[in-house]
Amino acid sequence: MSDDPDHALGTVVADYVAAWNSADESDRRALLERSFAADGRYLDPTARIEGREALVGHARRFATRWPGAVIERTSAVDVHGDGACFTWRVCGPDGVTVHEGIDVVIAGPDGRLREVRGFFGAYRSPYPSPR
Amino acid sequence: MSDDPDHALGTVVADYVAAWNSADESDRRALLERSFAADGRYLDPTARIEGREALVGHARRFATRWPGAVIERTSAVDVHGDGACFTWRVCGPDGVTVHEGIDVVIAGPDGRLREVRGFFGAYRSPYPSPR
Repeated sequence: MSDDPDHALGTVVADYVAAWNSADESDRRALLERSFAADGRYLDPTARIEGREALVGHARRFATRWPGAVIERTSAVDVHGDGACFTWRVCGPDGVTVHEGIDVVIAGPDGRLREVRGFFGAYRSPYPSPR
Repeated sequence: MSDDPDHALGTVVADYVAAWNSADESDRRALLERSFAADGRYLDPTARIEGREALVGHARRFATRWPGAVIERTSAVDVHGDGACFTWRVCGPDGVTVHEGIDVVIAGPDGRLREVRGFFGAYRSPYPSPR
């Protein structure tokens, strides 16, 4: 883990996203061991997952349900303090966006994520861009 | 508080945003008493506020620093479980957007917000809209 907490959280998020995209169960688990607390929580509008091992299974089911789909970050990882957020999309094998949303993550004392909250949807403002 | 937790959290968020927009100190405090836990935390890239009374002061300083500015929600309040997120903008007296971002809020057992995390920026996806 870097001495720079922002950099560290960016690396943790990269490992976390890579875990979702891994096709291999042992890779997926190894990435979540680095990035997600053993007793971490994952919440989204459709799932409430308690603990890393349950999340390994949840990510496996995602990979099974949406074969060839990839999760891509669509924003920088915006870090402040022990929290960060970033937007993402799920794109199918043909590159078409099938789902998108924003994740808010909170790191525990060892830098691993202790909570991930996903919200679905694009969060585009109805207002014109400032400036 | 409604029996419908989603509805209740929407109401709490409305009171919370109204507190920021109140020009009157006692209104501001009353709105935060309804919507923000006495020991709640507020975090954004520029501030880390511990406790309701400190947040009353922080919101007062906002009103003083940006006279006539109003915070408007720019998305629905997206609720799941005890958490919600919504986008917002700060607009000046002339209606121009001067700042925007997304807030993620987590409610405590009594429905009041125990944690608010604000992230700054528009979170527009660089990808075209799906469909």
